[in-house]
Amino acid sequence: MALIVQKFGGTSLGNGERIQRAAERVAAERRQGNEVVVVVSAMGGETDRLLGLAGELSERPPPRERDQLLATGEQVTISLMAMALRELGQGARSFTGAQVPIRTDTAYGRARIVEIEQEALRSCLDEGSVPVVAGFQGVAPEGDVTTLGRGGSDTTAVALAAAMEAEECHIYTDVDGVYTTDPRIVPEARRLGRITFEEMIELASLGTKVLQIRAVEFAGKYGVPVRIRSAFEEGPGTLITVEDAAMEKALVSGIAHNEDEAKVTIIGVPDRPGIAHAVVGAVSQENVNVDMIIQNQGEHGKTDFTFTVPRSDYRLVMDLLEPVCREIEAEALTGSERIAKISVVGVGMRNHAGVADLMFETLSREGINIQMIATSEIKISVVVDQKYAELAVRSLHEAFELDKPISDRNHIH
Amino acid sequence: MALIVQKFGGTSLGNGERIQRAAERVAAERRQGNEVVVVVSAMGGETDRLLGLAGELSERPPPRERDQLLATGEQVTISLMAMALRELGQGARSFTGAQVPIRTDTAYGRARIVEIEQEALRSCLDEGSVPVVAGFQGVAPEGDVTTLGRGGSDTTAVALAAAMEAEECHIYTDVDGVYTTDPRIVPEARRLGRITFEEMIELASLGTKVLQIRAVEFAGKYGVPVRIRSAFEEGPGTLITVEDAAMEKALVSGIAHNEDEAKVTIIGVPDRPGIAHAVVGAVSQENVNVDMIIQNQGEHGKTDFTFTVPRSDYRLVMDLLEPVCREIEAEALTGSERIAKISVVGVGMRNHAGVADLMFETLSREGINIQMIATSEIKISVVVDQKYAELAVRSLHEAFELDKPISDRNHIH
Repeated sequence: MALIVQKFGGTSLGNGERIQRAAERVAAERRQGNEVVVVVSAMGGETDRLLGLAGELSERPPPRERDQLLATGEQVTISLMAMALRELGQGARSFTGAQVPIRTDTAYGRARIVEIEQEALRSCLDEGSVPVVAGFQGVAPEGDVTTLGRGGSDTTAVALAAAMEAEECHIYTDVDGVYTTDPRIVPEARRLGRITFEEMIELASLGTKVLQIRAVEFAGKYGVPVRIRSAFEEGPGTLITVEDAAMEKALVSGIAHNEDEAKVTIIGVPDRPGIAHAVVGAVSQENVNVDMIIQNQGEHGKTDFTFTVPRSDYRLVMDLLEPVCREIEAEALTGSERIAKISVVGVGMRNHAGVADLMFETLSREGINIQMIATSEIKISVVVDQKYAELAVRSLHEAFELDKPISDRNHIH
Repeated sequence: MALIVQKFGGTSLGNGERIQRAAERVAAERRQGNEVVVVVSAMGGETDRLLGLAGELSERPPPRERDQLLATGEQVTISLMAMALRELGQGARSFTGAQVPIRTDTAYGRARIVEIEQEALRSCLDEGSVPVVAGFQGVAPEGDVTTLGRGGSDTTAVALAAAMEAEECHIYTDVDGVYTTDPRIVPEARRLGRITFEEMIELASLGTKVLQIRAVEFAGKYGVPVRIRSAFEEGPGTLITVEDAAMEKALVSGIAHNEDEAKVTIIGVPDRPGIAHAVVGAVSQENVNVDMIIQNQGEHGKTDFTFTVPRSDYRLVMDLLEPVCREIEAEALTGSERIAKISVVGVGMRNHAGVADLMFETLSREGINIQMIATSEIKISVVVDQKYAELAVRSLHEAFELDKPISDRNHIH
């Protein structure tokens, strides 16, 4: 008898009928003889509704009160899910974060899980019942409600699976798995049967939104196999797991694209120590995430400095950097909101120099100019003009033969 | 420095702007140098919304899960109220029932408060902050969330005031106090400055909906002065307090009317022991509240048996009693949904026989036939045809001179 953690997101719990269907998935898993712990998010739209109420009263709600407010979203769904399960004849019992308890630190809005007590959950399981646990929330040492930040329900599910040594953690969402690329752009995109944690982290960081990056990191750290499945149709989904020497490996797993970033360039900066710090420091003080950072040595002791930021922060960053540029005596500050980041991801590329070459060759053949390049061990990202985004994704998907089963691919050497 | 408990109901918290106005009332009380503990209900309509969600999933939701669900309503308002207070520069901290903790038994849906721990609330007050406590909810010994039943927020407020020895408990609602009668029927109705707990209990039991009867009983038992005030306008409201020998007493405080009941009569019952039990027992087994019960000895060893029930239960009760009537060999079962109960309430009538007389005389002069009469120490109720309800209220209000200040009344002798 295996223990499975099943997590249902807001879309899968959007109304009574969907909650009922989710409950049927749980009951089906139980009928197969497995023990099940369920983790739920708030109903779709509920968190935004609550934030809207708070926004009417305060521009910057006190974090403790904000968490106390937001935690009600999941408290509603745990009780509704428990009711739905009981209606199906399946014993069930709802647990808020404090009732488990899931102990966290006191960092309201982005709390870290410190400890999960298993006693109450185990005794619920021992009765043949299904514990239904509120995702996204925990309890601080003094009894205050905390939340883990957006998407924190995934983290709750993975953390529970790790603590209770579950066989697998199933994440039910509105897609049926992880694809070789965005199927809206490339209809030939294939669902991946397996993918490694490292690849999934890269894909998540690139905007593939099926799973919170923090949850994947957590799963990787504790070796919890995570399966992404559709809440609306049957299917094996995509298993995220450790790299397995025996498994047939693709050179490249997928092509990701991200059109939510903007590019900022400071031209003609005197090339001396402290410049990067002056620029990036100013930006991150405003809690803006700085992504790809590139510095090119230029002529006459001057250098160009380029990085990307979330597009929503672009104006803020440009305003912020104007005085900084004067101070560091830069020649000009430019930027663009019309960029796209295209990435090729795969653990197989670790030992293979040919991947970068095929990527650049493909883009060049299509006449797509590369503005920036960044690489990691299992990823190559380029920034291109946004108007080429779809063309880039399609041509790379074809070049790496991602539309074919792995065995049929004509691997580059 | 006095301690005041301020309770705001759902209508006073219906949207962001109303919550803000309620917060201003709290801040104003603080500026007068008083310590304040705030108790809030769920936003108007929220409890029904949640029950609607539960209803989609289960006809009879498990009580524990129902309470877990409903408690979110007040958890939302405590955090919003705390935000609004902080926005006004007034320190505040929200508390769920479990965070206080307000300990209850495990009777989900109608839990009784067993103990209120004051430590956390006191330390919040000592910091100069306002504790904002979720009404209607508590925590059972095992950590489960419980609710006190509809209107339970009033009970929470009074219980907190009693436990913390508050000077007064202020109930903010959508009316500015308790009136001599329904102002929609009698425009000359006057707001009462003071009223005793006993009178208020009678008025509440008669359908005057400004305060839950259980909360008034609780307040009376522990001698907590309760003040009913409008959430929307300034004013002293009505103080509900113990009978004060020094205070100028009215013979009659008010006229109440209740048009939510129906009358059931069993005619020609053999007059022998056990009949009342057979009838009332059958009804109360279905959790129907039986009110006024009258039995008149008839002729030939037969008797008539009449009582009132909530109008919404009338059909159920009639169906229920048909087999019972056959069993006890009654001659007939009749009833009416078109009745009204009119009551004259006042502690002053305790030592005054003239009140009943004036009441009956007034109704007779107006040609209103009395169908049933019931009396308590401080109340006389009659049941009349519903079409006479307004006329009865108006003529009694005038006969007892309730439109005049007490000192101007021409008291009957």
